[in-house]
Amino acid sequence: MAGSKFAYVRNFELPDPLLPGTFMILRIDGHAFHRLSEEHNFAKPNDERALQLMDHAARDVMTEFKDIVLAFGESDEYSFLFRKSSTLYNRREAKILTTVTSLFTSSYVFNWSKYLSDTPLKYCPSFDGRIVLYPSTTVVRDYFSWRQADTHINNLYNTLFWALVLKGGQTTTQAHAVLRGTVSSQKHEMLFSRFGINYNELAARFRKGSVLVREEVSTETEGVDGLEATPLPVSEEVSEVVSSGAPRKASKKKVRVRTTIELCHCDIIGDEFWNARPNILAD
Amino acid sequence: MAGSKFAYVRNFELPDPLLPGTFMILRIDGHAFHRLSEEHNFAKPNDERALQLMDHAARDVMTEFKDIVLAFGESDEYSFLFRKSSTLYNRREAKILTTVTSLFTSSYVFNWSKYLSDTPLKYCPSFDGRIVLYPSTTVVRDYFSWRQADTHINNLYNTLFWALVLKGGQTTTQAHAVLRGTVSSQKHEMLFSRFGINYNELAARFRKGSVLVREEVSTETEGVDGLEATPLPVSEEVSEVVSSGAPRKASKKKVRVRTTIELCHCDIIGDEFWNARPNILAD
Amino acid sequence: MAGSKFAYVRNFELPDPLLPGTFMILRIDGHAFHRLSEEHNFAKPNDERALQLMDHAARDVMTEFKDIVLAFGESDEYSFLFRKSSTLYNRREAKILTTVTSLFTSSYVFNWSKYLSDTPLKYCPSFDGRIVLYPSTTVVRDYFSWRQADTHINNLYNTLFWALVLKGGQTTTQAHAVLRGTVSSQKHEMLFSRFGINYNELAARFRKGSVLVREEVSTETEGVDGLEATPLPVSEEVSEVVSSGAPRKASKKKVRVRTTIELCHCDIIGDEFWNARPNILAD
Amino acid sequence: MAGSKFAYVRNFELPDPLLPGTFMILRIDGHAFHRLSEEHNFAKPNDERALQLMDHAARDVMTEFKDIVLAFGESDEYSFLFRKSSTLYNRREAKILTTVTSLFTSSYVFNWSKYLSDTPLKYCPSFDGRIVLYPSTTVVRDYFSWRQADTHINNLYNTLFWALVLKGGQTTTQAHAVLRGTVSSQKHEMLFSRFGINYNELAARFRKGSVLVREEVSTETEGVDGLEATPLPVSEEVSEVVSSGAPRKASKKKVRVRTTIELCHCDIIGDEFWNARPNILAD
Repeated sequence: MAGSKFAYVRNFELPDPLLPGTFMILRIDGHAFHRLSEEHNFAKPNDERALQLMDHAARDVMTEFKDIVLAFGESDEYSFLFRKSSTLYNRREAKILTTVTSLFTSSYVFNWSKYLSDTPLKYCPSFDGRIVLYPSTTVVRDYFSWRQADTHINNLYNTLFWALVLKGGQTTTQAHAVLRGTVSSQKHEMLFSRFGINYNELAARFRKGSVLVREEVSTETEGVDGLEATPLPVSEEVSEVVSSGAPRKASKKKVRVRTTIELCHCDIIGDEFWNARPNILAD
Repeated sequence: MAGSKFAYVRNFELPDPLLPGTFMILRIDGHAFHRLSEEHNFAKPNDERALQLMDHAARDVMTEFKDIVLAFGESDEYSFLFRKSSTLYNRREAKILTTVTSLFTSSYVFNWSKYLSDTPLKYCPSFDGRIVLYPSTTVVRDYFSWRQADTHINNLYNTLFWALVLKGGQTTTQAHAVLRGTVSSQKHEMLFSRFGINYNELAARFRKGSVLVREEVSTETEGVDGLEATPLPVSEEVSEVVSSGAPRKASKKKVRVRTTIELCHCDIIGDEFWNARPNILAD
Repeated sequence: MAGSKFAYVRNFELPDPLLPGTFMILRIDGHAFHRLSEEHNFAKPNDERALQLMDHAARDVMTEFKDIVLAFGESDEYSFLFRKSSTLYNRREAKILTTVTSLFTSSYVFNWSKYLSDTPLKYCPSFDGRIVLYPSTTVVRDYFSWRQADTHINNLYNTLFWALVLKGGQTTTQAHAVLRGTVSSQKHEMLFSRFGINYNELAARFRKGSVLVREEVSTETEGVDGLEATPLPVSEEVSEVVSSGAPRKASKKKVRVRTTIELCHCDIIGDEFWNARPNILAD
Repeated sequence: MAGSKFAYVRNFELPDPLLPGTFMILRIDGHAFHRLSEEHNFAKPNDERALQLMDHAARDVMTEFKDIVLAFGESDEYSFLFRKSSTLYNRREAKILTTVTSLFTSSYVFNWSKYLSDTPLKYCPSFDGRIVLYPSTTVVRDYFSWRQADTHINNLYNTLFWALVLKGGQTTTQAHAVLRGTVSSQKHEMLFSRFGINYNELAARFRKGSVLVREEVSTETEGVDGLEATPLPVSEEVSEVVSSGAPRKASKKKVRVRTTIELCHCDIIGDEFWNARPNILAD
């Protein structure tokens, strides 16, 4: 074959498998989104439409990659948690990393006009991505606590910053100066006393970020035929049909594990969220 | 700071620098493009509009990343060559890999309607990417020879295959059977004798793929003011303004190195292309 | 400095940190020990002196590297388990791997004459090594079970093989043929019926391999002076002196954590060994 | 098999191939050799016997690993250059790195008494090692220039330092103070004026380090029988017997490529050494 004398160049492709038995977290970050938000007049301090677009792209990623059990988004970033035992693409790092980042980007551009219908996209937005391995459930939880704590810190700062600028008539330089060195309680107080804003009453989306979680729903049905008899809502997918294990031929009972992807803006630092969803961190 | 007790999770982020002094080649491949081409009725064996869209996305990538000196595309794939001394993102693998793959994807979706105006995009296309390091100019040239030889082999096969199906009335199974075991000369002969197609007269784009090359244009100007006095054509960018080295203040002569990105469908297996462009493989 | 124009070559040294929060297991294997054992007339199927020499080298490694909490040896190999939180050499892979492998080798050669006093070492023995990361206690235990099960399998085979050759007068080819396809119970039976050997009464060292475990001994003493007043037995080392945390100067109570390295030839597949030593797998 | 339920732990062993088409340089460094030299009364500033022992260990490594074409040693370190096309152990990093480091260590301990016959080795010396990839001949040459320039700088400093201490009666603190900030020419001058030492007349071994180079010797012989008829000197090894390529059965002419390992203490910064030995950097 004509190509064969050159095919040796493939020997330079080195394997890049990720360590088994660890949780992969893939985080996507917007590239130069400060400029993107300026050029497309994103609302300050938060643009709900732009955040919903991020959520949409993240949901598309989770719909495609069933091994992602949880995602957390804030601002222009999204983190995806793969279940520990995932063997997606044989855990090849570049393959997983690029396919997910690419699909997220694709969905973001594809769906832009659905959320920012009166603001045509002027140029190509892009994202970077990285995969970090976390070996234990403790570190995974701390990772998500880190991101949600960051959401809180940034949002409190930005909310006050933009109140000072947009309502208080200050320059951005002045606003930064006012904020310098203030602690959380002082920011709460300034927000309330000067702008009548009770921070804790702001939308949970802004304060807590977006949590997308794959929820499992098990139902018993009367065999495979039942699958067609009970059409699923559009938002649900059948990810697996697992035999109940009983070898009795007579019974056609099946346990269908359906999963849905639910969006919430809830606390993920405390135990409650995780205790209610043991599947996320299970083997 | 509230986030600090969790910030230790960053310790799990490991460095991933790529070996200096080597050529990086980043190849992007369409994910499940067989289905994409079916769903969007791409012309067979080649859809010129879809290939032009790929070229457009590749050009956008090269416009953004000046260290890419050459790119080669065929079908649903594109390879990008970075100059050997590139220090883009301190040569961090994941950062380079994802940013380029994401921008390519973004441009592909963003510009879809310019090329396939009567075929709305039905869902989100995506790409995977990988970076391979090549330590010498010989291997770099063999890499591109490998891809262009592959283009030829695939296109000759596909051209005859689809002629058999679309003009010869054969099923795809029959067409594959006819082609099995045939060598290049036999395919040429069948194309000509049965369908009157002279393979070598087909569009160079289909036979040779797309070559995007950064060309340097050096011009002398009368100092920095001249920069503004001579507006550049839109397709050109000033990538560098280099002093001529003479420390004499009196002289305002500057050598401006402008670069343009040129598209051709030429042979890159032989020496001619490379001899005419020593910059590509230079240090 | 004269060297500075060349010092850029250090940029090619890339970082190689191992993922935190995982157990490192470093396994050393003899290089071409089949020949070594032939040339130095090692006893068959096991040479106790050679095994004791391996244990000695392993103990020297554990004495030097306090983060190694467990080691397991059989034949010409030894596995070392580092505690999960080890930050030895900032977890740089090559540094840890080579320093340990080198010290093991050094001790093996250095102490050869103590164990094989009538067999001068004829040439330089060497070992290879590798580090594998294990993210959970379950996998760590399965790793050591794997090695001990291997010890059993090999030893049962070799014991019968060498009985057939040395006592049964068979050639090695004949002996292999006799053994082909036999299961464990058949080997036990042949050993007993043909050679009067009760496998389970063979030395535990041969059947179970060597287990070196770091045992912690905590004692309260009357302050730092006490350290000198109570000389430690040679086999014990003070690995850490930890303040009890009370900042009161008056009290000089200290908790001294001394560790000793104990050798045994016990079962490490069952729970008993591990339950009695929770420190090994603790954080 | 009893071991099979645990054998899955091997899945955690990840591949670690080194990029093909690059030069591997493996550098070994003594671990805590400052103490070793104190404890064993090494002569200052250089102990010739200890350096000869290092050379011996390096020669043993090169005798075992034919792909090493050059080595350079100074003080307690040695660098080994593998030919670019080496496929030793399929270029697995840990395997190459540990086997070489282990053999070097083994030889160092094994041969200690040959060189330091009146100084028994008190404890186990050890070495660390690392492999760095260099993609071009230029960088390889700069690497060796870096090491030899380092030899010069250190040796000039140490020669003067120990002259001040051993002959000038200064404390080590005083000697360091005298040397602080001095340039090369000042050190030469002080050595000569105060101690009558002409630096350039010192042994080349101390000023230039040790260079071990594999030299090829090709000879024609009368066929395979000739191999036995002409016994080789002990210091030479037949590394390859290559057919002359002529398919004529009648002729039994063979080209035997014998290699010897030569030690010198010559300059390797200039071109002369390399021009005379094009094989070192050849493909």
